[in-house]
Amino acid sequence: MLTVKYTFEQIVALVSPSKVLGQNTQATLKGIAGLDKATEGDISFLGNLKYKAEVFASKASVILVPNNYVGSPRAGQVFLLVDNPSKALDAILRDIELKTRPKVKPGIHPSAVIDSTAKVSPKAHVGPLCVIGAHSVVEEGACLVAQVYVGEHVLIKSDTTICPHSSILSETEIGHRCYLDAGVVVGSLGYGYETENGCHYRSPQLGRVVLEDEVDLGANTTIDRARFAETRIGEGTKIDNLVQIGHNVTIGKHCFVVAFVGVAGSTHIGDYVVIGGQAGLAGHLNIGDHVMIGAQSGISHDLEEKSFVRGTPSLPYMLAHRIDNLKRRLPELFRRVDNIEKTFAYLTQDATKSCFLKKE
Amino acid sequence: MLTVKYTFEQIVALVSPSKVLGQNTQATLKGIAGLDKATEGDISFLGNLKYKAEVFASKASVILVPNNYVGSPRAGQVFLLVDNPSKALDAILRDIELKTRPKVKPGIHPSAVIDSTAKVSPKAHVGPLCVIGAHSVVEEGACLVAQVYVGEHVLIKSDTTICPHSSILSETEIGHRCYLDAGVVVGSLGYGYETENGCHYRSPQLGRVVLEDEVDLGANTTIDRARFAETRIGEGTKIDNLVQIGHNVTIGKHCFVVAFVGVAGSTHIGDYVVIGGQAGLAGHLNIGDHVMIGAQSGISHDLEEKSFVRGTPSLPYMLAHRIDNLKRRLPELFRRVDNIEKTFAYLTQDATKSCFLKKE
Amino acid sequence: MLTVKYTFEQIVALVSPSKVLGQNTQATLKGIAGLDKATEGDISFLGNLKYKAEVFASKASVILVPNNYVGSPRAGQVFLLVDNPSKALDAILRDIELKTRPKVKPGIHPSAVIDSTAKVSPKAHVGPLCVIGAHSVVEEGACLVAQVYVGEHVLIKSDTTICPHSSILSETEIGHRCYLDAGVVVGSLGYGYETENGCHYRSPQLGRVVLEDEVDLGANTTIDRARFAETRIGEGTKIDNLVQIGHNVTIGKHCFVVAFVGVAGSTHIGDYVVIGGQAGLAGHLNIGDHVMIGAQSGISHDLEEKSFVRGTPSLPYMLAHRIDNLKRRLPELFRRVDNIEKTFAYLTQDATKSCFLKKE
Repeated sequence: MLTVKYTFEQIVALVSPSKVLGQNTQATLKGIAGLDKATEGDISFLGNLKYKAEVFASKASVILVPNNYVGSPRAGQVFLLVDNPSKALDAILRDIELKTRPKVKPGIHPSAVIDSTAKVSPKAHVGPLCVIGAHSVVEEGACLVAQVYVGEHVLIKSDTTICPHSSILSETEIGHRCYLDAGVVVGSLGYGYETENGCHYRSPQLGRVVLEDEVDLGANTTIDRARFAETRIGEGTKIDNLVQIGHNVTIGKHCFVVAFVGVAGSTHIGDYVVIGGQAGLAGHLNIGDHVMIGAQSGISHDLEEKSFVRGTPSLPYMLAHRIDNLKRRLPELFRRVDNIEKTFAYLTQDATKSCFLKKE
Repeated sequence: MLTVKYTFEQIVALVSPSKVLGQNTQATLKGIAGLDKATEGDISFLGNLKYKAEVFASKASVILVPNNYVGSPRAGQVFLLVDNPSKALDAILRDIELKTRPKVKPGIHPSAVIDSTAKVSPKAHVGPLCVIGAHSVVEEGACLVAQVYVGEHVLIKSDTTICPHSSILSETEIGHRCYLDAGVVVGSLGYGYETENGCHYRSPQLGRVVLEDEVDLGANTTIDRARFAETRIGEGTKIDNLVQIGHNVTIGKHCFVVAFVGVAGSTHIGDYVVIGGQAGLAGHLNIGDHVMIGAQSGISHDLEEKSFVRGTPSLPYMLAHRIDNLKRRLPELFRRVDNIEKTFAYLTQDATKSCFLKKE
Repeated sequence: MLTVKYTFEQIVALVSPSKVLGQNTQATLKGIAGLDKATEGDISFLGNLKYKAEVFASKASVILVPNNYVGSPRAGQVFLLVDNPSKALDAILRDIELKTRPKVKPGIHPSAVIDSTAKVSPKAHVGPLCVIGAHSVVEEGACLVAQVYVGEHVLIKSDTTICPHSSILSETEIGHRCYLDAGVVVGSLGYGYETENGCHYRSPQLGRVVLEDEVDLGANTTIDRARFAETRIGEGTKIDNLVQIGHNVTIGKHCFVVAFVGVAGSTHIGDYVVIGGQAGLAGHLNIGDHVMIGAQSGISHDLEEKSFVRGTPSLPYMLAHRIDNLKRRLPELFRRVDNIEKTFAYLTQDATKSCFLKKE
C-alpha cells in the first residue's frame, strides 16, 4: 500500500472521470491499494478484467472502473468511470511521484573519479564512486546515480538516468531521456570467434552501441558492441531485465523486449515488435515491423511484418495453438489407430491376407 | 579437494553414525573429495545413488554411506552409516566453515560513502566503497561485503549478508539472516507501460520490495519493485542465480526458484512451491501451495495446490511424460495410418468408390 | 561504420589474397562497413553466404570474397579472393585494434582499496575503485579495468582482463589471458540445500572455482563455487553473456557455451562441446567430447561423445527435426483418421456390428 493524502476533488481533477457513481466522499484519501487489500479511505482500480469480481467485495472508498463497467458502488463508496483505469491510476501515481520523489541534484560527488578530458555538464548529477573515462561527455539533466562506470569516448545525452553498477563501456552513445536500471552492461564484446587448430580466437569487436532516445534497459541486461559498425536500439524501445542483445543487432523503434530474451548477432528487428519473455532469436534474421513473438519461442527464420508466432520451431500463433491441443490428444489418437488396426485384422482375417498391417 | 585436518574420532563425533563398518583408522584425515578423486586420507560420501558403483573403487579412507547401503569397506577403509550422507557431510563442512572462515568484523571502511541520515549499527560491517543513502538503516551483524549500493529509506535487518556489486534500491526492506549474492538488484523498476500515440510510457513504479527473513538471492538475480504496494518474497524462500521476479509478485514461504526462472507481474505463488530452471510464469496467476513446476515449463494458467506440471503449455507431469513418449512415436503413427489407407484402398477398389480416402 | 585509413597495398598485405579481381584502387580506404551500408572508399566482406546477393549491389571499393566466389567486380571495385573472408577481415580489424586501442598501463589507481597482504605485480593495471582482498595475487599484464571486486586468496594470472563491476569471490583462480566482461560473478555460493522441519539450510559451499587459461566469460555470467573441491572451466572455453554454471560443474577445453545456458550442479562436460543459447542441462550428467546441443534444448540424460541433439526432452538432431515436421502435420493426421473411421463405419454398417469404433 502506498500512503497518500488527497481530497476527493483532487482525485477527480487528476483522472477526469466521464461519470461519477455514488456519493462524493468528504474523507481524506490516504492510500492506494489493490481491490482485495484496500480498506476505507483507499483508492483502488479495476485494471484487468480478471479481477472484476473483486470490485464487488472491495472496501476501497474510490474505485476507478472502465466506462462500460456495469455495477453500482455500495454506500459510502464512489466509482469513477474512465476510459482506461490503469492510465487513470498512473495520473495519480505520477502526481505522487512529482511531489515526493527527489529531483536530480546537479553536481559531482567528490568520491567520483572523472578523467580530466571528460566533459560533465554542471547540470548533470554524478553520484558517489562513479568512474568516467577519457573523452566522455555527460549532458545536462543526466543522472549517474552511484557507482556507475562510464568508459572512454562515451556520450550520455541529456536527462538520461543510469542506475548503480551499470557499465557503459567505451564508444557507447546513449540518447536523451533513456533509463538504464541497475547492473546493465552496454558495449560488452560480441560473441564471435574464428577457430584455428582447435583454438578459438575472438574476432576483434571494434564497433559500438547506440541507444536512441527514450530507450529503457532493465536491470542486468547486456548489449554487445558491434564487430564493426554498430548495435542499435531504436527510439522508444523498452527492454526488460536480463535480456541479451548480440553484436550488430538492430532493433527498431517502440518495441517491447521482455525478460530473458536473447537475440543473436546481426539480426534486424523492425518497429513496434513485441518479443515475449524467454524467446530466442537466431542470428542474421530479418524480423518485420509489428511482429509479435510469443514467450519461450525459438525463431530461426525471417518473419514478415505483422507475423504473430510462437513455439519452437515457431509457427503462426493459431496453428501453434491448434497443434498444442492436438498434441494433448495424442493418447486418444494412438488408441483410435490401434482400434482401427485390430478391427481391420478381425474383419479381414478370412477374406484377405492380413499382410496389410505390416509395419515398415 | 578441500584440505582439512581431523582425527577419525572427530569425524565420528560430527556425523554420529548409526554404525561403523571397517577398522578405525588412526591416520589424520586430510581432505574431502568426491568418490572418484579421493585418495588415502580423504573423507568421501555417497550423496547420490547414481554414484553407487564408485564406492567400490574409491580410495577414500572414510566414506559416509546411507544406512541401507549393502557392501563392505576394503582393508584400511571405514564406512560410516548415516541417515543422509549429504547432511552428514554438511556437518563436517559446517565445522570447517566455523573454524576457517573469517567472521564479520564490525566497522565501517573509511572509503564507504554513507549519508549522514543513515543509521548503521556499530556491530554491522560496511566494506570498502559501499554507498548507503539517506534514511537507510543497517542493523547489527549485517555485512555489506564491498561496493554494495544501498539507496534511500532501505532497511537491512540483522545478520544479513550482501555481496559485492549488489544494488538495494530505495524503499526496500530486507529481513534477518538473508544472503544476497553478488550482483543482485532489488527494487528495479517494474516493466509496465501504457501506450499513447504509438509511444510507450512507463507507469510510475512507486511500490517497494520486501524480502522476509532467511531469503537467499543468487548472483545477478533481479527483483522489481511494485507499481504501488509491494513485491514480497516469503520467509525461507531460496532463489538461485539469474532469476527475474516481476513487479507486485508475491512468493510464499520456503519455496525454491531455480536459475533463469521468470515470474511476470502480479503473479501470486504459494508456500513450498518448487520452480525448475528456465521456467516462465505469465502475469496475474495464482499458484497454489506445494506446486511443483518442471524446468523450462511455460505456465499460463492458475495452478491448484500440489499440482505437478511441466512443458509449454504445461500439463500434469505424467501426462506430459506420456505425450513426450508418443511424440517420439509420430513417425511410426504416420506409417501406420499410411498403411491403413493403402490397404483400405486396395480392398475397396472394386466394391466401392474409393472416394473415402479424400482429404479435406 | 568504422573509420580507418589504409592504402590498397596495405590491405593486400594484411589479407594475403589468393587472387585479385578488378583494377587496383589508388584511393585511401577510409571505412569498414557491411555490404549494404558501404560506400565508395569502404572495405566490405562476404562473411555469410546468405548475403551473396548484396555483393552485386554493394558500393564498397574493396570486397573480401571466398576463393570459390563466382562474379566480377564493377568498374572501380576490387574483389580480394581469400580462404575465409571473415578471418581476412579479422586481420584488418586486429591491425586497427593494435594501432588504436590503448595498451594496459601498469599501475594502481590511488582510489583502489588493496589489502596490505595482497600482491599486485608492478606490471599489472588496477583501475579506479577496485577492491583486492587479503592474500590475493594479481600477476603482470593483468588488467582490472575499474570497480572490480577481488576477494581473498584469489589468484589472477598474467595478461587476464577483468571488466568493471565483476566480482571475483574468494579462493578463485583465474588463468592466463582470460577475458571477463563486465558484471561477471565467479565464486557465488552453490545452490544446494538440505531441508529439515520444512526449512531449507544451505550446505556449506567451501570449494572454489578454477578458470584455466584463455577462458572468456561474457557479461553478467555467473559461476558458482564448488561445495568442496572445485568448479572448473577448461582451457580456451568461451562462455557468452548471462550464462549460469552450477557448483562442482566441470567444463572441458575449447567449448562454446551460448547466452542463457544453465548447467546444474555436478555435471561434467567434455572438450569441444557446443551448447546453444537458452539450453538447460540437469545436474549430475556426463556430456561427452564434441557433443553439440541445440538452442533451447533440455538435457536430462548423459550424452555420448559426438551426440548432436536438440529439443526438450532432447532427441538426436535429425529425429527431432523429423518429429517437428510431423507435429506440424497433426491436423492432417487427425482428419485422416477421422475419415478412415467414418468410411469404415459406412462400409460396415450392415455387414458387422459397428462396435469396433468405440473409443476406450
